Amino acid sequence: MFAHAAQLAHLPASLEATVVAMIEVSGMVDLVVDIRADSGLADAVGAALDAQRPVLCDCEMVREGIAPPDGSPVLSLLNDPRVAPLAKAMGNTRSAAAVDLWGDALAGAVVVVGNAPTALFRLYELLAAGAPRPAAIIGIPVGFVGAAESKALLAQGIAGVPYLTVLGRRGGSALASAAFNALAAGARA
Amino acid sequence: MFAHAAQLAHLPASLEATVVAMIEVSGMVDLVVDIRADSGLADAVGAALDAQRPVLCDCEMVREGIAPPDGSPVLSLLNDPRVAPLAKAMGNTRSAAAVDLWGDALAGAVVVVGNAPTALFRLYELLAAGAPRPAAIIGIPVGFVGAAESKALLAQGIAGVPYLTVLGRRGGSALASAAFNALAAGARA
Repeated sequence: MFAHAAQLAHLPASLEATVVAMIEVSGMVDLVVDIRADSGLADAVGAALDAQRPVLCDCEMVREGIAPPDGSPVLSLLNDPRVAPLAKAMGNTRSAAAVDLWGDALAGAVVVVGNAPTALFRLYELLAAGAPRPAAIIGIPVGFVGAAESKALLAQGIAGVPYLTVLGRRGGSALASAAFNALAAGARA
Repeated sequence: MFAHAAQLAHLPASLEATVVAMIEVSGMVDLVVDIRADSGLADAVGAALDAQRPVLCDCEMVREGIAPPDGSPVLSLLNDPRVAPLAKAMGNTRSAAAVDLWGDALAGAVVVVGNAPTALFRLYELLAAGAPRPAAIIGIPVGFVGAAESKALLAQGIAGVPYLTVLGRRGGSALASAAFNALAAGARA
């Protein structure tokens, strides 16, 4: 479909439709060179949705972009009233505090981060401290402050679970939710 | 702030903060070369918000990304129950049908399109047919099908109102809402 198709070689074949969806939603063919993913990602997301585990989003834009799969709740806690005081107490961002509120819902969940590097950094901390393990992490925050670093760590396997990311500054809520939707559609097919 | 600052020369000085916000939210410094805007845009958006006119969005992701200004309602009608039957009757997309439902709310409104080229094309048709004129159009749909064409027309002045756009395929809901938020913040400052 795309002239850059040959550059898909570094990605698992099970993610071809997902990568195409990410290119389509971003309008950027060369995105493919920065995409990194675990070969177990598609199966992990499919199993999580089959088990009706939650989809945990870092912000409302990601949540709005997700086509809700049957049975799995799709949540963002960024606007939860507990977040602001917790962020203040933690000395961290609201996005990071919202990750703390995921609690036991993390177990077997699909995490989708499209905005906040601090959400990913906090998730890595919690996992290192023994928090319940999600089934998969789609981590594609965007921008100049921490995004590239948070995604490089994910691609290095810091979370120890199947992942999908885009190296560098590019990313965002539309990319993250489009990637999730393509994975969910593939799991249903 | 950015190495490409010199490339801002083709844009109105009143939009500098807006352009920086668009670069920050996208992680793409070279976006600036594709940004096109009318010199009257900042004033037009400010006056519309002062008059508490609506902010009309083409989709929920744009609406979610907008920090609601005092007094101006922020609407997306994409999920309105009238949209699906209207789209079918029109033989057009749901995004285009939702634009028809804006009706008199268009008068003096700020239109923010971040997803659907068909929303922009339908808006041009309605304006040509005498629909109420919005105060400004932030039109930044994304992708391979119609996006570039819809934005080229906007940059050529087809709508006859102050505009902001990004030529080519790049765009999206995050860019569109970030641009609006920066303009709204500038209007309040």
